[in-house]
Amino acid sequence: MYAMASVKNVKDVEAKEVERSRDAFIQWLVDSRDGSNNVFLRRFVIKPGGEIPAHSHPDMEHVQYVLRGEYEVVVDGVVHKVRAGDALFIPAKKVHSYRNTGKEDAEFLCIITSQPYTTNWQETQPSRC
Amino acid sequence: MYAMASVKNVKDVEAKEVERSRDAFIQWLVDSRDGSNNVFLRRFVIKPGGEIPAHSHPDMEHVQYVLRGEYEVVVDGVVHKVRAGDALFIPAKKVHSYRNTGKEDAEFLCIITSQPYTTNWQETQPSRC
Repeated sequence: MYAMASVKNVKDVEAKEVERSRDAFIQWLVDSRDGSNNVFLRRFVIKPGGEIPAHSHPDMEHVQYVLRGEYEVVVDGVVHKVRAGDALFIPAKKVHSYRNTGKEDAEFLCIITSQPYTTNWQETQPSRC
Repeated sequence: MYAMASVKNVKDVEAKEVERSRDAFIQWLVDSRDGSNNVFLRRFVIKPGGEIPAHSHPDMEHVQYVLRGEYEVVVDGVVHKVRAGDALFIPAKKVHSYRNTGKEDAEFLCIITSQPYTTNWQETQPSRC
């Protein structure tokens, strides 16, 4: 036996606040509840002025695609200014953070594997500058 | 040693014709050349009237996200009319095909794992209706 196909629109998926972050939201678009055994698809929205503070994952890589907006992704101390149509690869272990310095919502997809993973936050709270 | 982060825009990635298809193009946005060990990200564009004919993969699931357009994805004989913002999961083994019946380009992301996989085409040539 194997799973049925799953189709859903982003508008129908609950958005949750991202922990330790400011004005950042996550939707789990495809995961094990859809029958996916290997790849999970999440969509993030960061409002203007919002951020996801610096963190790393010992064993989890990220593959991302920018849907909308212009924002900053800092990886290993290097600031990458990204925009719609940019595809990113963030290796495991690298400390990374996100800042929406633009005027419109930053929207991106972030793809991970189905394996359990750990998040190591660099600070206990996001900066409040 | 581990890989550097990779950032590239879709406009800078070569588009190749999809085999056995009509007016369908693929770009490999993130793969092993970027250091990705687990997840590969591809972008497909199917022009109006174009199609990718029926095929299946014995061991490969697909996770997809529709970026633009309105088109048909047929999975296991069921026609799914999809549009921007739709997230799809297509299980392994399921026969699937794509038809752009709309007036604008159909654009979608298709995510796979890094494992080698086989494609079983149902026909030797796409239909020419």
